[in-house]
Amino acid sequence: MTVEALDLQTLQTPALLLDEARMTRNITRLRDRLADFGVVFRPHLKTAKCVEVARRLMETPHGPATVSTLKEAEQFAQAGVRDILYAVGIAPGKLERALALRAQGVDLALVVDSPEQALAVADASRRSADVIPVLLEIDTDGHRSGLEPTDPLALEIAAILTRGGASLRGVMAHAGGSYDRPGRAALVAAAEQERAGAVIAAERLRAAGHACPVVSVGATPTAHLAPSLDGVTEVRAGVFVFFDLVMAGLGVCTLDDIALSVLASVIGHQRDKGWILVDAGWMAMSRDRGTARLPVDQGYGLVCDLEGRPYGDLIMTAANQEHGVLALRPGAKGPLPELELGARVRILPNHACATGAQHGAYQVVEGLSPAVRAVWPRFSGW
Amino acid sequence: MTVEALDLQTLQTPALLLDEARMTRNITRLRDRLADFGVVFRPHLKTAKCVEVARRLMETPHGPATVSTLKEAEQFAQAGVRDILYAVGIAPGKLERALALRAQGVDLALVVDSPEQALAVADASRRSADVIPVLLEIDTDGHRSGLEPTDPLALEIAAILTRGGASLRGVMAHAGGSYDRPGRAALVAAAEQERAGAVIAAERLRAAGHACPVVSVGATPTAHLAPSLDGVTEVRAGVFVFFDLVMAGLGVCTLDDIALSVLASVIGHQRDKGWILVDAGWMAMSRDRGTARLPVDQGYGLVCDLEGRPYGDLIMTAANQEHGVLALRPGAKGPLPELELGARVRILPNHACATGAQHGAYQVVEGLSPAVRAVWPRFSGW
Repeated sequence: MTVEALDLQTLQTPALLLDEARMTRNITRLRDRLADFGVVFRPHLKTAKCVEVARRLMETPHGPATVSTLKEAEQFAQAGVRDILYAVGIAPGKLERALALRAQGVDLALVVDSPEQALAVADASRRSADVIPVLLEIDTDGHRSGLEPTDPLALEIAAILTRGGASLRGVMAHAGGSYDRPGRAALVAAAEQERAGAVIAAERLRAAGHACPVVSVGATPTAHLAPSLDGVTEVRAGVFVFFDLVMAGLGVCTLDDIALSVLASVIGHQRDKGWILVDAGWMAMSRDRGTARLPVDQGYGLVCDLEGRPYGDLIMTAANQEHGVLALRPGAKGPLPELELGARVRILPNHACATGAQHGAYQVVEGLSPAVRAVWPRFSGW
Repeated sequence: MTVEALDLQTLQTPALLLDEARMTRNITRLRDRLADFGVVFRPHLKTAKCVEVARRLMETPHGPATVSTLKEAEQFAQAGVRDILYAVGIAPGKLERALALRAQGVDLALVVDSPEQALAVADASRRSADVIPVLLEIDTDGHRSGLEPTDPLALEIAAILTRGGASLRGVMAHAGGSYDRPGRAALVAAAEQERAGAVIAAERLRAAGHACPVVSVGATPTAHLAPSLDGVTEVRAGVFVFFDLVMAGLGVCTLDDIALSVLASVIGHQRDKGWILVDAGWMAMSRDRGTARLPVDQGYGLVCDLEGRPYGDLIMTAANQEHGVLALRPGAKGPLPELELGARVRILPNHACATGAQHGAYQVVEGLSPAVRAVWPRFSGW
């Protein structure tokens, strides 16, 4: 069957749908915002893992870009991307693959937050006669890895890198804690905390004689709500390209901005219980329950008609591997929508990164048209 | 690099490890048990999604087998499997693919629980001049799809099928509710409820003149603990092949039976917080938190050394996409194990089906040997 022949009624379900018009709008929105601040935009490609999406996200075919795995770096390098930040602290066992990419002409920068990592990177730089550029990870909200902005270890790490043959390109921070802080005021505060922490760390390094040209910050909520980016040179963000129910729940987007959905078919009913069964379970939606900690819990996803309009309070309340149970959210008033055997729905995901990862391709649609305009492959693995 | 050269120290991380010795023991255990009952064993291949594992699971190279998607049916059919139950209620839009498989000589049986589905299957049977065999799904614990054992609709569905050109091969039940009922007594009761419900439904169909030769039941907990299988002709089970922390938490297996683990590398520390960061996050572990509802919550996984021995109370307490946070479980006494940068660990998963699905292959190991003996590809998608 050719791509042209497929549409929302003929696609095999479950299938991952990407509304290109919404995606384009999302990209334009963040690009325009960041352009106003005069900072570099370095989109995170871990959400999409797709060359077609990456090309639309990046400012040039060569980058800049951010990745979360060396597999992503390798795949995007093969597609011509040349300016890549691998934004997860480097494991020594991955240095050979990183060097191989750099030897191919990719400006791959690494991340460290310990003297041990700095030593390993410096050693790799010397071995390969390649000055590996490194960002020092700064932890501005205590949620994951990184040094506190004023940790004196930063200077020790910087010295190990520069004495050892690597280079300290700058600092990076990621306000991952913002995903748990709904509401505009909380996100504005998280963004300012991220910015200030990264800038303080960079200033301390500069005061010690390190040029530290790059100050990289970002997470989708803070990229959209940062009141100031003073001292920041680049912003990273990933999930903004598709958005999802977590981002809508935080107040970063509306439901109409969510570009990703899972097409599913009704396979049965338990009418006494008010359940509609569909052929999309957690394998299609992922097990991500990110909205469980937000004011509105969307179960495993919010159910929409084929034109993308939510059926009021119909959500996926339970999921087995290949079964999803659709029901009205607790406390909601009926009636349950009439969805007969074989009827199709689109289900908005909690977390675009997690739901996307369950699928091998995007079925690209646009607005109200039921036609599949293109199929864009995704990759996975490490 | 050849497969022979790789071992637990040289594999790129994260990687999915499969201990073949444990798997073989798990298979033997359930086969032996079911042989004592004189029932057919129809393993569910949705956990493994791998031809190599399927060959070791099935009683013959041709089956019998159970699948949860038509993609699984197609992949295993291509590998020679000929007796397949597609154990998810059929969507009318999938009938053409099912017929195509049957036209290739695969004895593919379908599942229905509504007159609408029965009509669609009967129609497909007539159109294709192919008597499609059907199992009627019975719901014995209210957890998902299926008719209650004494629902009079069963007779209506059976009549639609047989009058319409399809055949009623039997009934099937799945005690999925057992995954929420820890302890031997609860699981024995769940198994008896599953058996009794399926047998009652079959007897009612037989009393109405339907031969109903197959009475199919199963879920890993009930397959292992059923006190009687009287009236049952076949048993299905899937996750038993690898086991996981949910099954250990239910009391169906011990930690030593878990054949699947994720190999990860240490990438950093937050020593003040007692955190060890590794390069396996939810992308490698899945977002499944199945043990959260059991007496012992294992976070995103239980951490073991390279020989598979748990480090006491070290679990993955939090997960980002490519970062896992290892820490002692709440309330546990230290000390935190010494795991330096680059050290490697094996992390047992909550749910083997979900964790497996995040990976493209099994790295096959055995017992205490660090060598990777083989790489078995997995497939995904629908």
